[in-house]
Amino acid sequence: MERTLNFDHWARRELDAVEAALDAWVPADTPAGLGEAMRYGVLDGGKRLRPLLVLAACQALGGAREAALRSAVAVELIHAYSLVHDDMPCMDNDVLRRGKPTVHVKYGEAQAMLAGDAMQALAFEVLTPDAGVEPALQARLVRLLARAAGHAGMAGGQAIDLANTGRLLDEATLREMHRKKTGALLLASVQMGAACGAPDETTWRALSEYGEAIGLAFQVVDDILDCTQGSDKLGKTAGKDLDANKPTYVSVLGMEAARRHAQELRVAAHAALARAGLADAAALAAIADKVVERDN
Amino acid sequence: MERTLNFDHWARRELDAVEAALDAWVPADTPAGLGEAMRYGVLDGGKRLRPLLVLAACQALGGAREAALRSAVAVELIHAYSLVHDDMPCMDNDVLRRGKPTVHVKYGEAQAMLAGDAMQALAFEVLTPDAGVEPALQARLVRLLARAAGHAGMAGGQAIDLANTGRLLDEATLREMHRKKTGALLLASVQMGAACGAPDETTWRALSEYGEAIGLAFQVVDDILDCTQGSDKLGKTAGKDLDANKPTYVSVLGMEAARRHAQELRVAAHAALARAGLADAAALAAIADKVVERDN
Repeated sequence: MERTLNFDHWARRELDAVEAALDAWVPADTPAGLGEAMRYGVLDGGKRLRPLLVLAACQALGGAREAALRSAVAVELIHAYSLVHDDMPCMDNDVLRRGKPTVHVKYGEAQAMLAGDAMQALAFEVLTPDAGVEPALQARLVRLLARAAGHAGMAGGQAIDLANTGRLLDEATLREMHRKKTGALLLASVQMGAACGAPDETTWRALSEYGEAIGLAFQVVDDILDCTQGSDKLGKTAGKDLDANKPTYVSVLGMEAARRHAQELRVAAHAALARAGLADAAALAAIADKVVERDN
Repeated sequence: MERTLNFDHWARRELDAVEAALDAWVPADTPAGLGEAMRYGVLDGGKRLRPLLVLAACQALGGAREAALRSAVAVELIHAYSLVHDDMPCMDNDVLRRGKPTVHVKYGEAQAMLAGDAMQALAFEVLTPDAGVEPALQARLVRLLARAAGHAGMAGGQAIDLANTGRLLDEATLREMHRKKTGALLLASVQMGAACGAPDETTWRALSEYGEAIGLAFQVVDDILDCTQGSDKLGKTAGKDLDANKPTYVSVLGMEAARRHAQELRVAAHAALARAGLADAAALAAIADKVVERDN
């Protein structure tokens, strides 16, 4: 209970810092409304799970704050751009996101595509400031994020998703899809936060295992919530995956096994944290619980 | 004449190196056909002007070859992804590019959007290898490319273009649009190549002026060719900007003034090169001539 209260306090403070950084670094004054569409797509919404993972991992290692805050903003920009593109008519054709009209509904498809493109570029721009972050660390952070966002990560997972709509998948293929589609960026969040410190090999490996478990748990719970919660609660269209005949953990494993799997992944995340030998792993531990216990 | 012959030889050798690097670094074996769509979008086509600018600038300064080759591939990936997205129905809705069906015609809109997204991520991945390029140089190259690709560069220019279709623009606004839309990436090509060497402030500034002149000249000539050449010659739909009522240098300045302006920019590019004090500026000088004299 004590830990949860502290976590909520910590999370609120960190989220304020993330929102302020996003507000400062996502430009308002770009030409032709592009900045406005970018800001609409990323400000004032979302759980900010990825930024919190970055900042918690950095803090657990006593890492560099400026680098971590830039990493937090960069991963959120990548996540947000993927949602903007994913919502477009040629992909999921979704009109509601975080309880608001999606970017292409509000600004048109062309501007939405450009805004997503510019958000991805901005993520890498934010990671490479003229000063304030060691150049070698800048390069390492870009490397982690680019690999997680691209063909071997998020974009590759989306392609698998696209190719398998309406098909039955076995659990191994479903896991592979989600490991790339959502898992890679969640793992990168933990690793980028860790890279801002000076993790030894054991800590790096254990934190990576934590990140993988969190990534998978997040998706399993997402699939459960898609079946059990209404659109109001989720802030997006519920039951959509089922309607679209997309394979989910619930459709592949069944609801009870999916719930059990989420709990196993929580245990695995905690076990990995214990192996990481961190001075202060409380925030990371609390995030593992939140990811599994959330109701939206 | 001597210089032109040497340039053609140099360009052929360098283009072979660029094609081999693209072939090696743009993956074929990604899941669900994503890599195939990426390769279709970037391999075996295009004039590769940006890679040639990178390699010529690097060579003029005796810079690091591996870094320059990675930069050449990265800028071409950014350029190619922008074409893939630009051709889509919600943007220019073009079905022909480099004489072939566009990516979305061949692979569908969703895969085309994902392929473009993954190509952008890959550009930054290519710039940040585990070894072979100094980390501080990696960070500098990412910084240059991200700024040129994003809201203050290419994406911002596309947004201006989008907002002004069907409107009359004065020359200053047209120039501002192209300075961002195509000029920023051409300038970044020169600067990234230069950064692979060790330019002093005078050389950096002069090469940047060269890059700006080349960038503008390229667009002026593009607008001229769009009016004077057929689709066969261009490998894309000719007269499209005119049909779409897009402002061009020809529509704003008139054909004769546009031709004169292209020649002035060529002179400005050569003058900047002379100020740069380079040991070997022959390739850069030849590129300035090619950009203005090309017929496709």
